[in-house]
Amino acid sequence: MARINENFLKLKAGYLFPEIARRVSAFTSEEPEKAARMIRCGIGDVTEPLPAAVREAMHAAIDEQASRDTFKGYGPEQGYAFLREAIVENQFAAMGIEPDEVFISDGSKCDTGNILDIFGKGNRIAITDPVYPVYVDTNVMAGNSGEADSNGAFEGLIYLPCTAENGFVPAIPNEKADLIYLCYPNNPTGATASRGELEKWVAYARANNAIILFDAAYEAFIRDPAIPRSIFEIEGARECAMEFRSFSKNGGFTGMRCAYVVIPKTLMGKTEGGEEVSIHRLWSRRHSTKFNGASYPIQRGATAVFSEAGKAQVTALIDHYMGNAALLRAACEALGLLVIGGQNAPYVWVACPAGVDSWGMFDKMLNEAQVVITPGAGFGAAGEGYFRISAFNTREKVEEVCRRLTSLIK
Amino acid sequence: MARINENFLKLKAGYLFPEIARRVSAFTSEEPEKAARMIRCGIGDVTEPLPAAVREAMHAAIDEQASRDTFKGYGPEQGYAFLREAIVENQFAAMGIEPDEVFISDGSKCDTGNILDIFGKGNRIAITDPVYPVYVDTNVMAGNSGEADSNGAFEGLIYLPCTAENGFVPAIPNEKADLIYLCYPNNPTGATASRGELEKWVAYARANNAIILFDAAYEAFIRDPAIPRSIFEIEGARECAMEFRSFSKNGGFTGMRCAYVVIPKTLMGKTEGGEEVSIHRLWSRRHSTKFNGASYPIQRGATAVFSEAGKAQVTALIDHYMGNAALLRAACEALGLLVIGGQNAPYVWVACPAGVDSWGMFDKMLNEAQVVITPGAGFGAAGEGYFRISAFNTREKVEEVCRRLTSLIK
Repeated sequence: MARINENFLKLKAGYLFPEIARRVSAFTSEEPEKAARMIRCGIGDVTEPLPAAVREAMHAAIDEQASRDTFKGYGPEQGYAFLREAIVENQFAAMGIEPDEVFISDGSKCDTGNILDIFGKGNRIAITDPVYPVYVDTNVMAGNSGEADSNGAFEGLIYLPCTAENGFVPAIPNEKADLIYLCYPNNPTGATASRGELEKWVAYARANNAIILFDAAYEAFIRDPAIPRSIFEIEGARECAMEFRSFSKNGGFTGMRCAYVVIPKTLMGKTEGGEEVSIHRLWSRRHSTKFNGASYPIQRGATAVFSEAGKAQVTALIDHYMGNAALLRAACEALGLLVIGGQNAPYVWVACPAGVDSWGMFDKMLNEAQVVITPGAGFGAAGEGYFRISAFNTREKVEEVCRRLTSLIK
Repeated sequence: MARINENFLKLKAGYLFPEIARRVSAFTSEEPEKAARMIRCGIGDVTEPLPAAVREAMHAAIDEQASRDTFKGYGPEQGYAFLREAIVENQFAAMGIEPDEVFISDGSKCDTGNILDIFGKGNRIAITDPVYPVYVDTNVMAGNSGEADSNGAFEGLIYLPCTAENGFVPAIPNEKADLIYLCYPNNPTGATASRGELEKWVAYARANNAIILFDAAYEAFIRDPAIPRSIFEIEGARECAMEFRSFSKNGGFTGMRCAYVVIPKTLMGKTEGGEEVSIHRLWSRRHSTKFNGASYPIQRGATAVFSEAGKAQVTALIDHYMGNAALLRAACEALGLLVIGGQNAPYVWVACPAGVDSWGMFDKMLNEAQVVITPGAGFGAAGEGYFRISAFNTREKVEEVCRRLTSLIK
């Protein structure tokens, strides 16, 4: 009898975004005329053209496949040296990271999910609340939690609430966690972490032999020079952290698929018997056995993000989205709504108007304004009462969203 | 204390192909002049240019990314409908498979490894021996085995030997297996399974509530019209099998990355309590949560494999590689070596000359003839005494391999 992984049965009805897609699709069937004017600010998906430097590099890589002499078959599972070196040179030069500590993949969703393969049973998992649902769901699938309660909170996970009361900065837990997910700039709240906050986390992790899984997918949106862009800017992080990064949101690669994980060779996990084992070695083995490298033309395109032309084009993309974020912030603030994020992050996190819960706000925006947002409760119990607006859109549509939001709420 | 997955520590020193790469690299450092004439017939990696129809489709897809109106961000996690429909129409039309039973991914290595996420503990795993190492290693990582013995065989796995004695056709086990890995045309032996053999497996699986994981990555190389190309040609397979396929070896996508799994909605696993759960539903959830779709231009390229031009170009590629296989077979047979495979598969499986074991043959071929082959023992204990030659090469190099092999052995 082929037995299934029963942990899957603990998961709630749907991953957040498929559930949103379902409601949008139902509305579209019922109200096709209204649906024609729909504007999507839900899922954090980019909208602007792929940078020219990236497209040129991909075209060239495809042309190489036309000739036996330049044809590329299987690449290194951990990624091509040209990309690993470009990443280190451009992003980690002063942090002591080496190119062979960078593992190229086809996406951060895959990396943040698959990383659990190398960790054992019995680890206590700490996550902020609200949080990117993938961290929670993959831990549930891996058996690192019990059942969900009526708010959707899973037994056994350590939730770190981020609310107006604590300024959306989670407290360092007073119990012992083994794996800690931190995402800065944050998805969904758009909050950032100061150097001092990250220093506290590194100190906590080192004191507890814990590992920080630092998700920096939105690093490119940091405008304030005082805010760290990488956990590896913090002294001691090489001994207690790994970092996830992606080309999705800076280079506009959501449809292309390329990301990476930085795992210092100095990062150790332990066996139950207390023996130290290199996390780098385990992930390298996992990558060699269950992954076959990211697509060659895509890796060439990702490398072009770091060319002179590519950098200028990416800067223009980020400027565009951050201009959108500023407009969305201003519109919400003018309505008297509590707003955070949108200053060093492409997400604006907004308190719902009085008396409306977050799925209520989602339905109201969909039905009455034909704007798709993301309900805060979809990111965790502490997200109730909030909604997320994504700044990934054209300027024209963002301006229209501001107008519709204003007439809906005012 | 962050605990690691200690099952990783049970794995042998290296995944087969990295170990080969290590030995080749050491030889190249020590003997750079000899290494300059090296010919690689080890890893099954394609060598011929990517079909023109595929390149054209990818170029067009990249051009779409230049404009906001045709830009593609996140795609459906399960793959674009255009590709899923092309696959069904061209490969499964008469087998009752629907497009939404096809899940697109970035590779069969990923799929055959990741599939274990949805299965529970306690399943008995049956694998042929020799076998593609990924099946074994991923089960060891998932905790479905005990420790390895001195031959590298893992306690708790059901090994089904394929040897000269049984004509390289594994016997149906007389114990109860829950998950059964079958690969036809076979990697590494190049053997195929007759309709009668597959019917026996389907009957066994149904009688035992087992699931067959059927790997058909080399389906395109089948020449004999009597040999089934899919497990779904067998009556009843929809209730007990899933099938893995890839564009790597037909379309030459090893560097591009695209593959798929076919999971009928009628395929069920069970909870420990005996309740039936849809495998399709579990994999769909896994795909949505831990994967973000295959790259858009790559999916467009894969779709072009099924265009009229693409089909003709793929046929020419297969003809080329099968011409190589025929030459390799003939050379080995002329030396009086036992040979199987190479008639409906791109691999030729050859018995080592008397007194030479398989890593001995690997080293001999590397040191004395500068030809990289794959040692049979790397595929399992029953592979000892054999070596695999890959037909993926240029004609010129295959002819040279035949000459070097002949002068080495004769």
